Amino acid sequence: MSDIEHRLEALGLVLPPPFPVPAHLSLPFDVVQVDGLRVLVSGHGPQAADGSLAEPFGKVGADLTVEQGYRAARLVALSMLASIKRTIGDLDRVRRWHRVFGMVNSAPGFAQQPGVINGFSDLILELYGPERGAHTRSAVGMAELPFHMPVEIEAELSLYP
Amino acid sequence: MSDIEHRLEALGLVLPPPFPVPAHLSLPFDVVQVDGLRVLVSGHGPQAADGSLAEPFGKVGADLTVEQGYRAARLVALSMLASIKRTIGDLDRVRRWHRVFGMVNSAPGFAQQPGVINGFSDLILELYGPERGAHTRSAVGMAELPFHMPVEIEAELSLYP
Amino acid sequence: MSDIEHRLEALGLVLPPPFPVPAHLSLPFDVVQVDGLRVLVSGHGPQAADGSLAEPFGKVGADLTVEQGYRAARLVALSMLASIKRTIGDLDRVRRWHRVFGMVNSAPGFAQQPGVINGFSDLILELYGPERGAHTRSAVGMAELPFHMPVEIEAELSLYP
Repeated sequence: MSDIEHRLEALGLVLPPPFPVPAHLSLPFDVVQVDGLRVLVSGHGPQAADGSLAEPFGKVGADLTVEQGYRAARLVALSMLASIKRTIGDLDRVRRWHRVFGMVNSAPGFAQQPGVINGFSDLILELYGPERGAHTRSAVGMAELPFHMPVEIEAELSLYP
Repeated sequence: MSDIEHRLEALGLVLPPPFPVPAHLSLPFDVVQVDGLRVLVSGHGPQAADGSLAEPFGKVGADLTVEQGYRAARLVALSMLASIKRTIGDLDRVRRWHRVFGMVNSAPGFAQQPGVINGFSDLILELYGPERGAHTRSAVGMAELPFHMPVEIEAELSLYP
Repeated sequence: MSDIEHRLEALGLVLPPPFPVPAHLSLPFDVVQVDGLRVLVSGHGPQAADGSLAEPFGKVGADLTVEQGYRAARLVALSMLASIKRTIGDLDRVRRWHRVFGMVNSAPGFAQQPGVINGFSDLILELYGPERGAHTRSAVGMAELPFHMPVEIEAELSLYP
């Protein structure tokens, strides 16, 4: 088992299965693209243990508290790691995280987006450490997100040669 | 004529001329930037045949249906291909699409952003095929977009060496 | 003194000190990341001369005019240049600006995001000139931004080898 997966296990965390796309829905894009050593990751939402989108849905600051938003962002990290693992095989191949773009479905007047996206950043740093896990970030407030997800995050990272 | 332009012609599609920037408006940025083999593309909106911004304007979910949003996103793809062609000369030079960031001007409660941005993804895949055309994507809901455009998309792709 | 800093001085502009992060706030990400020659920059807001977030706060189109938004975006450029300088030591090391993602905290119906983000683009072009300073850009309307900032901008640039 890889180092990163050992750490996930030690934290009691399990990577979710792929999102079961509803039959009526077309999602014609790659969840993860590897181009040379570069890894681009599509916008991910929080998944439940069965792979479906995790509750609660809605806007942080109204339907969700900051703490619930934080937990949703942590689930987004697990969803993304699961997608990356399915694409590159072994999470230890990640050399460095680069860019995290954190989008929070925000109720009017809600301005604590960083506190929400910390749920993602804290887990990536816990798993990959302060050097490989360090990333640039924006954490901003969206008007709406697909399927009424509370958080969506896209990212870029790179692999060891 | 290049392969991609043959396919556009076979689909009955025509690339629009440059956006005629109103005299009072300053847009001090590059619509497309080529750096080595990397191609970065600024946010594009839907253009009409004469190059002006295409109607309808407003928010998907209120002023536009999902189907109208889909058509707007398809027009964004044509606008972007026109800009790329003007910059690199030949659309066949594109080796691979990488990142698509799809922004939908969203009415309150509208959560079908993927169905809108599919208008862009479907055309890029139809033109470039499932390997070169494959891309990562986020499709998210903005509060407002410039000029009340219903859709704006930015992208990154790369060229053959 | 470097060329770029000479130009800043000639314009009477001073780079702000680091943002004094409030004790209760965790911001677990890198403000700037250098990876090889690539420089990724986290979302930045406007800073006052003492490093704190600059007033006015709120939404452009309601709490701020376009002109106030333009000045805020210009302050974001100074904030970002300060961060870049602290990371790479000398602003002359920048070979080229690549991508600017400009996010405007937008009041309902406000559609002049480009006129706001021009405050950033104009200063970068004034400092770096029309070749090194040229960048791709999106300028879009967010529902909310952290701390009620009126403008947040993230960017990518590259260094001379």
